[in-house]
Amino acid sequence: MTDIVTFGETMLRLSPPRGDRLERTRTLDVQAGGAESNVAVAASRLGSNAVWLSKLPDSPLGRRVISELQSHGVETDVAWDDSGETRMGTYYLEPGGSPRGTNVIYDRSDAAVTTTTPGELPQDAVRAADVFYTSGITPALSATLAETTATLLETAQEAGTTTAFDLNYRSKLWTPAEAKAGYETLLPNVDVLIGAERDIETCLGKRGEPADVARELADEYDFETVIVTLSEKGSLALHDGKVYEQGVYDADTFDAIGTGDAFVGGFLARRLDGGDVPESLAYGAATASLKRTIDGDLAVVTPEEVEAVVEEETGGISR
Amino acid sequence: MTDIVTFGETMLRLSPPRGDRLERTRTLDVQAGGAESNVAVAASRLGSNAVWLSKLPDSPLGRRVISELQSHGVETDVAWDDSGETRMGTYYLEPGGSPRGTNVIYDRSDAAVTTTTPGELPQDAVRAADVFYTSGITPALSATLAETTATLLETAQEAGTTTAFDLNYRSKLWTPAEAKAGYETLLPNVDVLIGAERDIETCLGKRGEPADVARELADEYDFETVIVTLSEKGSLALHDGKVYEQGVYDADTFDAIGTGDAFVGGFLARRLDGGDVPESLAYGAATASLKRTIDGDLAVVTPEEVEAVVEEETGGISR
Amino acid sequence: MTDIVTFGETMLRLSPPRGDRLERTRTLDVQAGGAESNVAVAASRLGSNAVWLSKLPDSPLGRRVISELQSHGVETDVAWDDSGETRMGTYYLEPGGSPRGTNVIYDRSDAAVTTTTPGELPQDAVRAADVFYTSGITPALSATLAETTATLLETAQEAGTTTAFDLNYRSKLWTPAEAKAGYETLLPNVDVLIGAERDIETCLGKRGEPADVARELADEYDFETVIVTLSEKGSLALHDGKVYEQGVYDADTFDAIGTGDAFVGGFLARRLDGGDVPESLAYGAATASLKRTIDGDLAVVTPEEVEAVVEEETGGISR
Amino acid sequence: MTDIVTFGETMLRLSPPRGDRLERTRTLDVQAGGAESNVAVAASRLGSNAVWLSKLPDSPLGRRVISELQSHGVETDVAWDDSGETRMGTYYLEPGGSPRGTNVIYDRSDAAVTTTTPGELPQDAVRAADVFYTSGITPALSATLAETTATLLETAQEAGTTTAFDLNYRSKLWTPAEAKAGYETLLPNVDVLIGAERDIETCLGKRGEPADVARELADEYDFETVIVTLSEKGSLALHDGKVYEQGVYDADTFDAIGTGDAFVGGFLARRLDGGDVPESLAYGAATASLKRTIDGDLAVVTPEEVEAVVEEETGGISR
Amino acid sequence: MTDIVTFGETMLRLSPPRGDRLERTRTLDVQAGGAESNVAVAASRLGSNAVWLSKLPDSPLGRRVISELQSHGVETDVAWDDSGETRMGTYYLEPGGSPRGTNVIYDRSDAAVTTTTPGELPQDAVRAADVFYTSGITPALSATLAETTATLLETAQEAGTTTAFDLNYRSKLWTPAEAKAGYETLLPNVDVLIGAERDIETCLGKRGEPADVARELADEYDFETVIVTLSEKGSLALHDGKVYEQGVYDADTFDAIGTGDAFVGGFLARRLDGGDVPESLAYGAATASLKRTIDGDLAVVTPEEVEAVVEEETGGISR
Amino acid sequence: MTDIVTFGETMLRLSPPRGDRLERTRTLDVQAGGAESNVAVAASRLGSNAVWLSKLPDSPLGRRVISELQSHGVETDVAWDDSGETRMGTYYLEPGGSPRGTNVIYDRSDAAVTTTTPGELPQDAVRAADVFYTSGITPALSATLAETTATLLETAQEAGTTTAFDLNYRSKLWTPAEAKAGYETLLPNVDVLIGAERDIETCLGKRGEPADVARELADEYDFETVIVTLSEKGSLALHDGKVYEQGVYDADTFDAIGTGDAFVGGFLARRLDGGDVPESLAYGAATASLKRTIDGDLAVVTPEEVEAVVEEETGGISR
Repeated sequence: MTDIVTFGETMLRLSPPRGDRLERTRTLDVQAGGAESNVAVAASRLGSNAVWLSKLPDSPLGRRVISELQSHGVETDVAWDDSGETRMGTYYLEPGGSPRGTNVIYDRSDAAVTTTTPGELPQDAVRAADVFYTSGITPALSATLAETTATLLETAQEAGTTTAFDLNYRSKLWTPAEAKAGYETLLPNVDVLIGAERDIETCLGKRGEPADVARELADEYDFETVIVTLSEKGSLALHDGKVYEQGVYDADTFDAIGTGDAFVGGFLARRLDGGDVPESLAYGAATASLKRTIDGDLAVVTPEEVEAVVEEETGGISR
Repeated sequence: MTDIVTFGETMLRLSPPRGDRLERTRTLDVQAGGAESNVAVAASRLGSNAVWLSKLPDSPLGRRVISELQSHGVETDVAWDDSGETRMGTYYLEPGGSPRGTNVIYDRSDAAVTTTTPGELPQDAVRAADVFYTSGITPALSATLAETTATLLETAQEAGTTTAFDLNYRSKLWTPAEAKAGYETLLPNVDVLIGAERDIETCLGKRGEPADVARELADEYDFETVIVTLSEKGSLALHDGKVYEQGVYDADTFDAIGTGDAFVGGFLARRLDGGDVPESLAYGAATASLKRTIDGDLAVVTPEEVEAVVEEETGGISR
Repeated sequence: MTDIVTFGETMLRLSPPRGDRLERTRTLDVQAGGAESNVAVAASRLGSNAVWLSKLPDSPLGRRVISELQSHGVETDVAWDDSGETRMGTYYLEPGGSPRGTNVIYDRSDAAVTTTTPGELPQDAVRAADVFYTSGITPALSATLAETTATLLETAQEAGTTTAFDLNYRSKLWTPAEAKAGYETLLPNVDVLIGAERDIETCLGKRGEPADVARELADEYDFETVIVTLSEKGSLALHDGKVYEQGVYDADTFDAIGTGDAFVGGFLARRLDGGDVPESLAYGAATASLKRTIDGDLAVVTPEEVEAVVEEETGGISR
Repeated sequence: MTDIVTFGETMLRLSPPRGDRLERTRTLDVQAGGAESNVAVAASRLGSNAVWLSKLPDSPLGRRVISELQSHGVETDVAWDDSGETRMGTYYLEPGGSPRGTNVIYDRSDAAVTTTTPGELPQDAVRAADVFYTSGITPALSATLAETTATLLETAQEAGTTTAFDLNYRSKLWTPAEAKAGYETLLPNVDVLIGAERDIETCLGKRGEPADVARELADEYDFETVIVTLSEKGSLALHDGKVYEQGVYDADTFDAIGTGDAFVGGFLARRLDGGDVPESLAYGAATASLKRTIDGDLAVVTPEEVEAVVEEETGGISR
Repeated sequence: MTDIVTFGETMLRLSPPRGDRLERTRTLDVQAGGAESNVAVAASRLGSNAVWLSKLPDSPLGRRVISELQSHGVETDVAWDDSGETRMGTYYLEPGGSPRGTNVIYDRSDAAVTTTTPGELPQDAVRAADVFYTSGITPALSATLAETTATLLETAQEAGTTTAFDLNYRSKLWTPAEAKAGYETLLPNVDVLIGAERDIETCLGKRGEPADVARELADEYDFETVIVTLSEKGSLALHDGKVYEQGVYDADTFDAIGTGDAFVGGFLARRLDGGDVPESLAYGAATASLKRTIDGDLAVVTPEEVEAVVEEETGGISR
Repeated sequence: MTDIVTFGETMLRLSPPRGDRLERTRTLDVQAGGAESNVAVAASRLGSNAVWLSKLPDSPLGRRVISELQSHGVETDVAWDDSGETRMGTYYLEPGGSPRGTNVIYDRSDAAVTTTTPGELPQDAVRAADVFYTSGITPALSATLAETTATLLETAQEAGTTTAFDLNYRSKLWTPAEAKAGYETLLPNVDVLIGAERDIETCLGKRGEPADVARELADEYDFETVIVTLSEKGSLALHDGKVYEQGVYDADTFDAIGTGDAFVGGFLARRLDGGDVPESLAYGAATASLKRTIDGDLAVVTPEEVEAVVEEETGGISR
């Protein structure tokens, strides 16, 4: 009865007030953030039964993450590490403003999740789900996680669970060459690929018209669906040989972090609910645009809000 | 010696921090807000002697409203309800940002004010005032208030007090047909009508060029002055057969709630101080534009600031 | 597989900063609070599978409550009211300090929950649970709720689910005579009665030595267990004809609200986990003492913390 | 129709969060505070019509004070100084805790109020009041104020207005010898003297049993009433030859600043409302004890709360 | 070994939250700000050894300033005034938004710094520095400071220390005529003049093409370098007979206060580090644009950030 | 010219608001804390020239620590690690209240400081100082640090710099047996030993009357001074064969963390300033008691405040 299972790292996200700097701040705002739980939260809020798998240190900090994900209806099934050898991953987020970029400082080394083996995770949950989702961040975190990611994708594939994977290349975690090798191990077991145009070029070496790139990838790996995200230019999906294009909904951006994950969560939730690919792209794009107006990694939205954006009945004050 | 008396509901306005959502917030900012007290505050701050009439529960929440209105120099003359049967009206305001609209959740049922009878209010104060103001929200709140509003307008009219009325149609309170019936009972006792172009069309069924609409209304109800507000396009007044147009002053909008009330408060304050109609329109528009830069329903402005906007000597840093 | 199902009203709890007063505050802290969800949260955090049943308005305010309860692992199964006719119950809590008492202002009239009928609730969940818990607040809220409470207790009783009931007399909701009548309808279907000495005397008319009072009640209603709470003097349980006494663990009280519910939640969680009555009393008392150190209605504690209090290995700084 | 007029300086009070120090704080809490406006606020809240006279710089800072006093129902009648030559008095308050004392840093030099002449104040308001109150801080602030204070007391006296005066000796403003000279000029026009035992000894040179000291002062200056405050030991009043003693109500002290002014405000409000001296002492002591539980200089209390303390029906949680 | 010594007043800067107004705010943010310490902080952060000279009251408020400047690596060498006769200068900053200007209220009269005599300052430090910097604010604060400023510039000049001076005309401190007289006394001892086009015209009476104005000034006072700042149009430097132009880097402005000082600090730091004039102008402009994104007077930036702006490798999120 | 050099780890200290829990908090207060920098800050604030040596990651988090230490006048001389291999140590501090203990969660693994070699530190600074101070935490952090600590103590000893060492046993870092071995390597190069009675017993195996224990240690290691701290019972020093006892000054404890370091900092500052042992003990105890009233690890105090405690002229409000 589970719609979607995701697996990956979630960190505590610590950020100073707007206009202040990490170097002198007296307070930090605390939230939970991580690509795979961001997707789970978006999907859960939009009606999917979502489960997040991971490993956390057995501490108040680990529970802080669980607390926030559960608050959005996500079921959590995590291995608790009480060895005292691992940590809670954190990241510091200093909001910028041109010409000062937003500054992200990862402090995720030795996070408990990096030691996760397949045996610590409920593989039956993966088999019972309609969709299994993870991203390219997970295998990049440790050799152990690279293996665990591969195993889970294989498990899902064998059980007939649709697998979705977002390249999510992170240059602070591995080189393009390392990423390429990592991706190539995993992609044969992926059904739905999501990738930023830039990541596809940097790591997989494909460049050209997005539609051509999508076809090339689909041919090479036999994907069911390929989604290429094009930053401000929107996104494009190849499915059953057809190409669908989707623009971006304008947004007053309060916080851009998590926008891509909101897109994926919205897309998958709509697909799981019977939407076709173009409908689901629109749903994903709308979820992403709403996310931009909200503080934090998470798309704290409702289905009604997403639908209103798709139907363009938005803005203004209702009273 | 009172310049202006207003009558209506004021609520506690509760809003989460920018970028946060009601659904998960840990803190709410508290302010007082309501069309008629917003007008009283703007007028008081701009030099009028302003009195606000209403009914409140006899509790710290009722006193919270009084406290804030008095702080701006408004005199309050309210009936206190200690029956325990009624409530303090509240509204939750979640600031948005495109494509997510600003969300207003009213929680005003059974508010003490909805039980106000004329006998509970100081009608002599209405008679002694130069202007009596209320809006279309008040009669929409309860049958009792519809009667009380009618009585007060009649009392004012008989005493020679100028009556000003803003249609302020609220679709969450009544239908256009109900509103039409309600307005038609009251308008014969109104001297100065203020109405948004959209409300006039929706409820009174008049559409066309704003100046024509104003003339049609003036002819039908024998108004002394008709002001049609046109959203971003400004406003227009018909007075003594002449039409005056007023643009909008550009503003960096921090909070749009209360802008219309600030306009009315500014207009009436200037009129009470001897301003002619075009001067008063400019004064109202300037008050409204300043309001937009300020958090909360209230136009926390000074006469000097309003005049500076009118004279376009604004912006920058003075030091 | 559910251990405990609770049913009742949960409100938004709004409180000003320490030392400030509702009458002038600019900010309110927001939390969720209600006897039955407080018990569910305590039990869930201490290892029970807990489900909370209720009815909420279909709004961000209703979801705010769900969000907080879910964050503590409580499963929520609520009827959503989108009629627009009912409200989210709220209560304002102004922390005091001698000689100024803590001030609680309820604003719960017309709360969605007051219209809950048995048909809107998952009665199978009640039947499948080990324990069903509600308190005397619930039937006091409306005639509908009085009937629903009776039905649920009967349903549970017939299914062999243990029923636990805390008198929780609230003088702002009904008179002692009304409460007595209400209780007498319900108590025949109650297995475990929890009552404050004062409430038992005021509403049920029993006074005397607590142990005698407990016996008298047990004889009259055939309770499996009777717990009499004695404020600072601790508590006493009568079970299988034996009387067990439990003192209070000293605490630096930060916030006393919810202490009684923490006691019940701790007691039931330990019973459900196989604890005998004296062990469970100690567990309840320890949970209550920890609650006192924490802001809000909820016992945000861990089993380890509760056990440490019971074993008196507490205080100090561990590093 | 005014019950009480007070005259004196009110400052902005700026204080860092608890446990923080001025030397490194990033935020300051802002409130208004000053002996004479503290008395006016307490009296106003307890039912008196209270007017506060002063002089303020014509700036947002001056209006900040007015805003806060008006919010408590105090009428303000101040001279506005737009010369740019004077300042808004401020004081920094760093809350302590043994062995670190509470630190008060006055920054009140050249405050607008120090230039106030009698002609700038509404002397008719003084004449029309039942009571005129000021304290020994006012004449200590400048030679001009010493004269103005003398004039106002004389004006009041001649008009039959009862004059009340609190010695309020401040060692940072003048020496005991200077204070003595200042007091001796004013006391012949004082009807009700309030003085701390320590101030009476330090400045007026009277020591001994408080009752004897009171009699000696009454004989010397022909006071109608003498109140000697004895710190934790309570207070004592001599009136019509009789001595009344009043203890202190226990309080959990959150903020001790303003306690003495709350006592005076409570005492005078009760006297104005027809209370006899012992009743009024109790009322003052209760107001003072409530003040201790509240952040800031002001006694933000209600008559019901004060009466409950007097009747000892306090503490606990009512719900 | 000191690169740069600056001398001037630093104030506590107190500002309400965004959207709030001084007139009703409950909290103020506290920071340190003053032209010469702003320059010292920018220079220090960008690699210079910077010393700030001044005079402060011996109080927690004086130490608050020291604390903040030291935190950025600035060495402070100040005279402490424990006379109790002088104050800590403060200024209130209310952020605006069109059409409401940003409001600056100075409260700096009788600041300790206004009594500073040359003998109280470490003139050897001035002599040992590469650059001595002060601005036109300093001599405008008091006659004593005018003399002290003159003495320090002379001391520096005689010792071969390069002197840099920013006109920084403040109309609230002196008239254009007074400023002209003041400047004319000082400019003969200035090597590097910085002036806003508007100030040069208002006070020195030079108008025309900026390059011509710069040449005219250089001819008249024999400046080594003249920098004319042109607001949004950038800046222009004349050095060794050549004219260099520098545009403005676009910025999302969070807080514009201190932008000019950041420009000077960046310019001087780069010059001290061997940069030529055009490089240093770019460095100054980049520092200024970064400052705009940061709350407070200070350019809390790193050399890497400044260089990235100059090299246009900015914006976006790096992860 | 340096009085005292300290060496050790400083962490970011992150703590939720009072009454809240890490598990659900939305905000964390940020401060810097670490035994050796705590001592340096206390000493610096009390008049010593203090230098802190360490190694930090080259990031805003590393600079956050520097910023705070410099703000108290401490000179910092640190190695910056830009390898990206190490972290900024952090610790989470959840304030408790009986029966819930204060919870400290260290997150310090792989901190940059753990890789510090002697060659990265300015050993000349150690040689030039009057006192070199470190604590038992430092060698416990890594094998590298154990060696570096030994080298620095030896360097100091050879140069005639007095060495001071606080056992500071941390059971989360090493076992008593490991600590014993570690201490025994270092103690031959220590002149002034500070140790808690409990640590001396646990790790060094000495128990008995404190004075006897001190003598035994002095005999064994030839210490110049031995200070035994006795928790609430105060402390005791053995110096030149004489024993001096010092009680504890009562304090309203706001935050107990850092109390021991404040004691050492106060003791050493007084000794460096010429105080004899008993005077310095009193100074240390007074510094410690003041620290308890202040939020954070640091003793943000002045010499005047410390002296006032010693002279018992404390408490109350001065105005």
